[in-house]
Amino acid sequence: MPVRAGIVGGSGYTGVELLRLLTAHPEVEVRVATSRADAGRRVADTYPNLRGHIDLDWAEPDLSVLGGLDVVFFATPHGVAMTQAEALLEQGTCVIDLSADFRLRDPVMWAQWYGHPHTAPHLLAEAVYALPEFNREAIRPARLLACPGCYPTAVQLALLPLLEAGLIAPDRLIADVKSGVSGAGRKAETGLLMSETGEGFKAYGVTGHRHWPEITQQLEQMAGQPVGLTFVPHLVPMIRGIHATVYAELSETDVALQSLYEDRYRAEPFVDVLPEGSHPDTRNVRGSNRCQLAIHRPLPEGRQIVILSAIDNLTKGASGQAIQAMNIRFGFAETTGLTQPGLYP
Amino acid sequence: MPVRAGIVGGSGYTGVELLRLLTAHPEVEVRVATSRADAGRRVADTYPNLRGHIDLDWAEPDLSVLGGLDVVFFATPHGVAMTQAEALLEQGTCVIDLSADFRLRDPVMWAQWYGHPHTAPHLLAEAVYALPEFNREAIRPARLLACPGCYPTAVQLALLPLLEAGLIAPDRLIADVKSGVSGAGRKAETGLLMSETGEGFKAYGVTGHRHWPEITQQLEQMAGQPVGLTFVPHLVPMIRGIHATVYAELSETDVALQSLYEDRYRAEPFVDVLPEGSHPDTRNVRGSNRCQLAIHRPLPEGRQIVILSAIDNLTKGASGQAIQAMNIRFGFAETTGLTQPGLYP
Amino acid sequence: MPVRAGIVGGSGYTGVELLRLLTAHPEVEVRVATSRADAGRRVADTYPNLRGHIDLDWAEPDLSVLGGLDVVFFATPHGVAMTQAEALLEQGTCVIDLSADFRLRDPVMWAQWYGHPHTAPHLLAEAVYALPEFNREAIRPARLLACPGCYPTAVQLALLPLLEAGLIAPDRLIADVKSGVSGAGRKAETGLLMSETGEGFKAYGVTGHRHWPEITQQLEQMAGQPVGLTFVPHLVPMIRGIHATVYAELSETDVALQSLYEDRYRAEPFVDVLPEGSHPDTRNVRGSNRCQLAIHRPLPEGRQIVILSAIDNLTKGASGQAIQAMNIRFGFAETTGLTQPGLYP
Amino acid sequence: MPVRAGIVGGSGYTGVELLRLLTAHPEVEVRVATSRADAGRRVADTYPNLRGHIDLDWAEPDLSVLGGLDVVFFATPHGVAMTQAEALLEQGTCVIDLSADFRLRDPVMWAQWYGHPHTAPHLLAEAVYALPEFNREAIRPARLLACPGCYPTAVQLALLPLLEAGLIAPDRLIADVKSGVSGAGRKAETGLLMSETGEGFKAYGVTGHRHWPEITQQLEQMAGQPVGLTFVPHLVPMIRGIHATVYAELSETDVALQSLYEDRYRAEPFVDVLPEGSHPDTRNVRGSNRCQLAIHRPLPEGRQIVILSAIDNLTKGASGQAIQAMNIRFGFAETTGLTQPGLYP
Repeated sequence: MPVRAGIVGGSGYTGVELLRLLTAHPEVEVRVATSRADAGRRVADTYPNLRGHIDLDWAEPDLSVLGGLDVVFFATPHGVAMTQAEALLEQGTCVIDLSADFRLRDPVMWAQWYGHPHTAPHLLAEAVYALPEFNREAIRPARLLACPGCYPTAVQLALLPLLEAGLIAPDRLIADVKSGVSGAGRKAETGLLMSETGEGFKAYGVTGHRHWPEITQQLEQMAGQPVGLTFVPHLVPMIRGIHATVYAELSETDVALQSLYEDRYRAEPFVDVLPEGSHPDTRNVRGSNRCQLAIHRPLPEGRQIVILSAIDNLTKGASGQAIQAMNIRFGFAETTGLTQPGLYP
Repeated sequence: MPVRAGIVGGSGYTGVELLRLLTAHPEVEVRVATSRADAGRRVADTYPNLRGHIDLDWAEPDLSVLGGLDVVFFATPHGVAMTQAEALLEQGTCVIDLSADFRLRDPVMWAQWYGHPHTAPHLLAEAVYALPEFNREAIRPARLLACPGCYPTAVQLALLPLLEAGLIAPDRLIADVKSGVSGAGRKAETGLLMSETGEGFKAYGVTGHRHWPEITQQLEQMAGQPVGLTFVPHLVPMIRGIHATVYAELSETDVALQSLYEDRYRAEPFVDVLPEGSHPDTRNVRGSNRCQLAIHRPLPEGRQIVILSAIDNLTKGASGQAIQAMNIRFGFAETTGLTQPGLYP
Repeated sequence: MPVRAGIVGGSGYTGVELLRLLTAHPEVEVRVATSRADAGRRVADTYPNLRGHIDLDWAEPDLSVLGGLDVVFFATPHGVAMTQAEALLEQGTCVIDLSADFRLRDPVMWAQWYGHPHTAPHLLAEAVYALPEFNREAIRPARLLACPGCYPTAVQLALLPLLEAGLIAPDRLIADVKSGVSGAGRKAETGLLMSETGEGFKAYGVTGHRHWPEITQQLEQMAGQPVGLTFVPHLVPMIRGIHATVYAELSETDVALQSLYEDRYRAEPFVDVLPEGSHPDTRNVRGSNRCQLAIHRPLPEGRQIVILSAIDNLTKGASGQAIQAMNIRFGFAETTGLTQPGLYP
Repeated sequence: MPVRAGIVGGSGYTGVELLRLLTAHPEVEVRVATSRADAGRRVADTYPNLRGHIDLDWAEPDLSVLGGLDVVFFATPHGVAMTQAEALLEQGTCVIDLSADFRLRDPVMWAQWYGHPHTAPHLLAEAVYALPEFNREAIRPARLLACPGCYPTAVQLALLPLLEAGLIAPDRLIADVKSGVSGAGRKAETGLLMSETGEGFKAYGVTGHRHWPEITQQLEQMAGQPVGLTFVPHLVPMIRGIHATVYAELSETDVALQSLYEDRYRAEPFVDVLPEGSHPDTRNVRGSNRCQLAIHRPLPEGRQIVILSAIDNLTKGASGQAIQAMNIRFGFAETTGLTQPGLYP
């Protein structure tokens, strides 16, 4: 019998990406997709790419219905999952949250960055940060999975081998990150119009972005000590894709970086260390669940290194990674439903 | 045992699209991919999106090797397949040509439009024009399949129901068609640079485009009489997608257009007639093998109608349709390997 | 003394384009720019491209202040200018309306297409439709100028020579038009996000677009008889630019089209008839007030012709044309402030 | 009498940008524009945006003709200007080189980075690096001006105030830079096709880019000591624009950064320090000669700072800056012909 799944907030971009991937997943049946705004409409009327692939109407969220499912994905803005998770957990439903509600372990920090108190702080200790490459074993038995943000996924995968090996100065990390506009969601905001985002490039949120505390928390867990991270996000005039350019200083100069990365990620199905000298391009991972990485030692010769990391923000950066975690959690092969290559060109 | 396939000219866009789709096809194994320019390199070095999906080096084309396969796809510029098809057919290999070599039935017309004589005119009679929605039965036993061009696919599917039913004036057809830049191929030409094609829109080839005789030939076959078609192609600043806006005049005013189209295409897995009043968007079929259609009767009230038709030029307009034909030819379910939804957004 | 100008609704795209052009106009001084939403902010804070070029705060619209100016441009949504024009005219201020309020001569038709009654129908007879190439002499003494829409400009300039000469069948006109997304304005709508408009192409409003009655009215005036126009707009994944592909049937076959167009437009500073066989590209008129045209007789040989017309929707399609009309109205050289070439690439 | 100017290599993007700007320059008359490939064609046939603005045919380069002019701009690939400069200088013609030939002071380093020996090393000492904000006085009397590269302009203007003031650690500089595709020029290369550059983002040249030695040389001159710069360029899916995100470490924490920048650049007509907290967007400087800057102190609190710098790579990054230098050299107001605002949206 397939896993019965529900999606709360299905009409945003991570929602429709979940639908795209889950309708092709052989072990899952999507039973419910909720959207307050679209309730009653056909899902495939909102998303004509899904015509013939899904036979559902958008539903109002109903915790008793959702609680009868095996797994519920929250593809909602922050602040929603925290109010509904407990009721679902009590009914035995696994909760996979793609929002930020359960990513930070510290409710005080959460309140500080998200502007209102966390309403389910008692669940934070239980929530598992669902980056499979770092936390696979903790995901297996989890009831509540907090999926990493898109930038955090790209940056953590870039630094994980070096931090675990203790080979870089933890207080001199810089992540210069760039995202396509779908990362900002399907929100009617002037600043996201094509006339405002096409044919232009800018940084944003330099004074403080919510992914900074998330990444810092996780890098510290990887390093086993405090880290100092400078994080500058930018908006790229494209729809999908994240590219992280990460700068770090080696603590010793004689490090075999390429083999360090290849060894660490050899068994990982969704992390692909490119040959030396490569430059990952987001176009090669578009629509795929893969992270492609390259490691460089740029001029001037010294201890500074650069790690390049490319993902699709909606797939490995959100919905694909959530399904990867679900596969682990429900005992399926980790790559189930996630094997399609990137759509090139 | 899987069908053993080869791709000649695999390093262009229709070639890499064949590879993307065939590496996920459960009944096919790609044994050979040729590219003179890249011979000896890893296929996945040229196309990093295929890393881990295909384990081949680019080969020089070798007719004896290719002739040992079950099927060979030509994803070459025109003029290549015509010189190699016979040798493959003689070895019992099915030839599926994505180029223009076998699309026109008349070798004189071919020479006129392509600038040099056809070198295998004796094969033209045998070649089957592989538009499944029109020619399915002829595809099943064929040895030599001529896949339709991208514009011709979009235009023919737009007009097929009306022409078969004899409901429009055949001498007043207008196809105003628009293509993403990948339709021009992976050629190092100044005019295809992003600086020359991004953020701009223009018509091209108004004085005569090679798809005009192809479409005219096919529409005449559908209509059973001569047709007069005005055909104006345009270049859209996007990578994938074709949109055809087709104008026709009804010969009688009282026609139930919507049901005509729904009835004609009800059994077609890859033609999707949208609800009345819809506007197909190429974004909804990106990466999918589907054609989405809508029929309108615009102002002023009268006999003029407009059919809107959207496909992905590389999928339903080329490589996906070639695989669809292969599925028919080899007796697989027609949708095998072609079921993924469009990549939205 | 310079002309003292005001802009109502300056914070939309036609508003900022007026500001860009007027700040460089040697005979005009912008005294007031209104925006209810931004009132009190610096204009250059909203539009950093204007820093150092304009030293104004956004104002609340105030008819007594505006009425003290020589000219007021309305860059507002429809429905605003009609309520304020009379008060300004009474104070002796020239009104140049870039919205749709005074384009249609028939208030019944206006109400039908815009969904509410026209509140100043008595001004419609006085309003001059400000397409200089057709109406130059009427513009000179006008108090109230109704600037043409963007699509209507491109289509009228494409057909003007033929209609005036009576050389085409007036009941078989087709305008297949394509616009960049800035044509939809600076509105916070989901459908205008880059994720929804980038990398896709679609028609819209096929069942009826407000520019259809405007164009029809004007073509009838040019032809001196009723016309039948089919009008299909499309959205192009770019910011600026309109391309009209216009189809017409010659009433006689022996027409010297190229010289007809060259003769008609020889004295027009902003209409550029390209050499035979050309394909105008919107990129070549980006930011310029120019319309570039080409005329083709496509296959099959016969009476069908195609006129290609490219403008920048915000310049010749809106704000540049409004300034051109102002130049005529105030007796300046018609090209004053409008001579910059298109921004290529 | 106007300055008589020639452009060698006028058919590339910096060439057409020179033509766009110079045809509107009141003190300059372009007498010659050379292009071997296009010789004999009308300039405006190659660049229809210039129709009516320039009445020239492309010429073969002829040193005796060019030597009769007041100034010659080289908009050629590297390696050309160095072979022709001397002959022009001897005839009394001012040479303004937009290529890399005279940017590096050390011919050995030049040979190392450009792959062949410098053929005019004796001119290197005389050449003035034409960044007006740093070198204005040296530009005035110069015969041979070496215009800065596009990335170098953006990075130098970002760091100049801090280096001159000695406020940052010179050995810990990082420039993460991003360029639109026009920076790669008008070259028929597969990698620059829209299908290869649209909708994707990647770094390139991480192992060594020719702008690295140029920037390093100049920063060292500003700092008066050796610097250590890590430089990572990226390709943005847009046509025009460069954004530099520059990281530096303050040597003391108590620095009034905003006023430092405002004071340093107050008198500079083309450097615009944005208000605190701003994020410059390349869209706001498109087609303008302006650099917009912002300075941030990101989390975590400490000595790390970030300077954001946006220019148009073809204008302030190339042709606009060359004209700015020419204005200084010939005694015109520095902003002559360069006052147009950015083209937004």
